[in-house]
Amino acid sequence: MSDEIFRNPRDGLIGPFSPRLFTLQTAHGPVNGPQFMPVGTQATVKSLTPRDLKEAGAQMILGNTYHLCMRPGHKLIERLGGLHEFMKWDGPILTDSGGFQVFSLSGLRKVKEDGVVFSSHLDGSKHFFTPELSMEIQASLGSDVVMAFDECPPFTDDKATIAKSMDRTLRWAQRCRDYKLKPHQKLFGIIQGGMFLDLRQECMEKLVAMGFDGYAIGGLAIGEPIALTHEMVRQFAPKMPADKPRYLMGVGRPQDLIVASAHGIDIFDCVMPSRNARNGQLFTSEGKVNIKNAQYIEDRSPLDPACECYTCRNFTRAYLRHLFVAGEILSAVLNTIHNISYYLALMGRLRVAIAENRFDEAAAALYKK
Amino acid sequence: MSDEIFRNPRDGLIGPFSPRLFTLQTAHGPVNGPQFMPVGTQATVKSLTPRDLKEAGAQMILGNTYHLCMRPGHKLIERLGGLHEFMKWDGPILTDSGGFQVFSLSGLRKVKEDGVVFSSHLDGSKHFFTPELSMEIQASLGSDVVMAFDECPPFTDDKATIAKSMDRTLRWAQRCRDYKLKPHQKLFGIIQGGMFLDLRQECMEKLVAMGFDGYAIGGLAIGEPIALTHEMVRQFAPKMPADKPRYLMGVGRPQDLIVASAHGIDIFDCVMPSRNARNGQLFTSEGKVNIKNAQYIEDRSPLDPACECYTCRNFTRAYLRHLFVAGEILSAVLNTIHNISYYLALMGRLRVAIAENRFDEAAAALYKK
Repeated sequence: MSDEIFRNPRDGLIGPFSPRLFTLQTAHGPVNGPQFMPVGTQATVKSLTPRDLKEAGAQMILGNTYHLCMRPGHKLIERLGGLHEFMKWDGPILTDSGGFQVFSLSGLRKVKEDGVVFSSHLDGSKHFFTPELSMEIQASLGSDVVMAFDECPPFTDDKATIAKSMDRTLRWAQRCRDYKLKPHQKLFGIIQGGMFLDLRQECMEKLVAMGFDGYAIGGLAIGEPIALTHEMVRQFAPKMPADKPRYLMGVGRPQDLIVASAHGIDIFDCVMPSRNARNGQLFTSEGKVNIKNAQYIEDRSPLDPACECYTCRNFTRAYLRHLFVAGEILSAVLNTIHNISYYLALMGRLRVAIAENRFDEAAAALYKK
Repeated sequence: MSDEIFRNPRDGLIGPFSPRLFTLQTAHGPVNGPQFMPVGTQATVKSLTPRDLKEAGAQMILGNTYHLCMRPGHKLIERLGGLHEFMKWDGPILTDSGGFQVFSLSGLRKVKEDGVVFSSHLDGSKHFFTPELSMEIQASLGSDVVMAFDECPPFTDDKATIAKSMDRTLRWAQRCRDYKLKPHQKLFGIIQGGMFLDLRQECMEKLVAMGFDGYAIGGLAIGEPIALTHEMVRQFAPKMPADKPRYLMGVGRPQDLIVASAHGIDIFDCVMPSRNARNGQLFTSEGKVNIKNAQYIEDRSPLDPACECYTCRNFTRAYLRHLFVAGEILSAVLNTIHNISYYLALMGRLRVAIAENRFDEAAAALYKK
C-alpha cells in the first residue's frame, strides 16, 4: 500500500458524496443505476424462474462466461438462439469475461502473454482462454454487455507485480477492443491496479484512450479488508468517466452497495444474496436473520415486514424456518426470492433518494440497518 | 389369492366402464372428481409455491400426518393457525392417517391392539401412534378430509393374517369414528382386505355401517403386480357407495388413473409426478421423457407441445436438460410444475370426456399414450 491515503483506510459512509442516477441503454431495455445484477451463473439465477426475477424487480442479470462455456457450451447456446432465448430472460444480460473464474476456480493455471491455460473444474480437461476466445464466447452468448478479459492478481502482490499484471490486462483489453462483437453488444473495460491508486489511475486513462462503452473496477472484494475496498471506491470512483456507466464487480453486502453508490457507482453484482439465501442467511430491514435459529420456531411475523416480495407477503418466519430445517427445495426458492428482492428494493430506495435530492439522510438511515 | 377373479388378473382398460363425475364439497372449496391430489409431505409440495400449484390446476393437496407430527409438530402448526395457514394453501387439504408411513418408513415397529410403537426416521426416538392420536394430530392440522388410522399389511400375507389385520383396522376405524374432530372436518374410512375380494367386501360393509364421509381403498399399489391392482379396482370400485367419494390411495401412473377413473374412482394421490420430476423423468402426451438423455441436448421443442404449463409455455427441452445435468434447483421447480400440471390436465380431460359422454374413446386414446 504505497499510497498515502491507504495508510489509514476507513470503511463506512464518509463524505463528500457524489451519488448519481445513470441509465445504461441496452438492446434489451434500460438499466437504471444504481442497480444490482443478480448472478445467473449457469443460465439460471439459482432457484428462480424468470418470472420470479421480474417480480423481484430485476433489470439486468449476470451470466458467467466460464461456466457457460464449460457447460452446456457457448456454441450450443448460440445455435439455440443465444443466452436470452435459452434461459428465457428478455431483459439485459451482462456476461463476465471468464477471467475471474479461471483465476479463482482453477487449481492448475498458467498465465501466458497470449492467455491462460487452466483445467476445467468439471472434468479436469485442459483449456486455453485468450482475450479473443472470451470475446468469441460472449458474442455467442449474445449478452448486452461484454466484459474485457482481464487478469485479477491477489491484492497482496507487490506493486511491481501488480503493475506488470496491469500492463498485461491493458494489452488484453486492446485485443478485446479489436474484436468484432455483435452489433447490439457493448464492451466494458476493467480497471485493475490492486490497492494502488496511481496504478488504477494509469490503467483507467489507458482504457479510456482505447474507448469502451463502460468501465468496471475489478480486483476489489477479493479478500482485502473492507476498509480498503471502501477507501478505494471513495477515492477512485468519482474520477471515473462521468459519461459512461461505472460497474463495481463482485460487491457486495448491502452496506457496501450504499457506500459505493454514495461515490457514484452505477452497477453491482454479487452472489451473496442468492448464496446466503440457500444457507438460510436473510437480509431484512431489521438486520440479518439466520432463519434456522430456534427463536423463529413459532414466529408468525413475516420475514421482513417492510418487504413486499412474494415471500414476505405470504409466509411466516416459522414456516420459512420449517422449510429450511426440513431441507425443502421451497426453502431455497422463497429465501432467494426475498434476498434478491431485498437487494433490488434497496437500490430502488437509493435511486429515489438521489432523484429527490435526499441521498445523504436516506443512505445514512439505510446504512445503519 | 383365493378368489376366482384373481387367478388370471389382467391389467389395462377392460370394460364395462362406470366412470363418474363426483364433487366433494369441503370447507375450503369443491373437489371435482376424478381428481388428483399432489402430495405435500412436509407442508410443501416439493419445490412448488402455492401459486405454482394453483396455476397447475390443483384443487386438493395431501399432507402427511406422520411427517408433520415429527416435524415441525402438529401442536405448533395448530398454534400457528393450522396447516392451511401455515403453508398458505387456501384450497382443500386431505391428511393421511400416518399409518402407512409408520408401516413403510419405520424400521422398528410393533403393532399392538391399542396402536403402533415405532421409531422416528429423523432421530430414532420412540413414539406410539394410536387411532386417537392420529385423529388428534389431524384435528390440529385442521385438514378438510381426515383419514382413519389403519393397518396396511404386506399384500403377500396369507388370508388369515390379512383378515386378522382387517379386523383390527375395523376396530381402529370405530375408534376414529368416535373421536370428535373439528366441525369442518370430514372423515374417510379405509378399506383393507389385501387381494381378497370377499374380505374387502366385508370390510367395506362394516365401515359403511359405521358411517363415514367417504371411503378409500388402502393396501393397493404397495408392490403387487399392476394386473392385480387393476383387477381389484375393476371388481371392487363399482361396488363402493355411490353417494360418497371414492379414494384410491397411492395410485399411481397416468395409465392407472385412467383405468381407475373408468371404474368410478374419484380421488387419487401419488408422489410419482413430483418425485419423478426431481429425477428428470417427465410425463408427456408423447410418452415418457428422460430429460437427461443426450438426444435432448439441442432439442428446441417444448417438453410437451400439448401442455399449457409455465414450463412448456416457456422453455425448451435443451434448457431443461441443461438445468438437470447442471444440478440446478430450477430443474426441480420447472420439472415439477410440468409433471403436476400434466397429471391435473389429464384428470381434467377425463372429467370433460365423462361430462360429454365420450369417456370410452377419450380414455382409450389417452391410455395409449
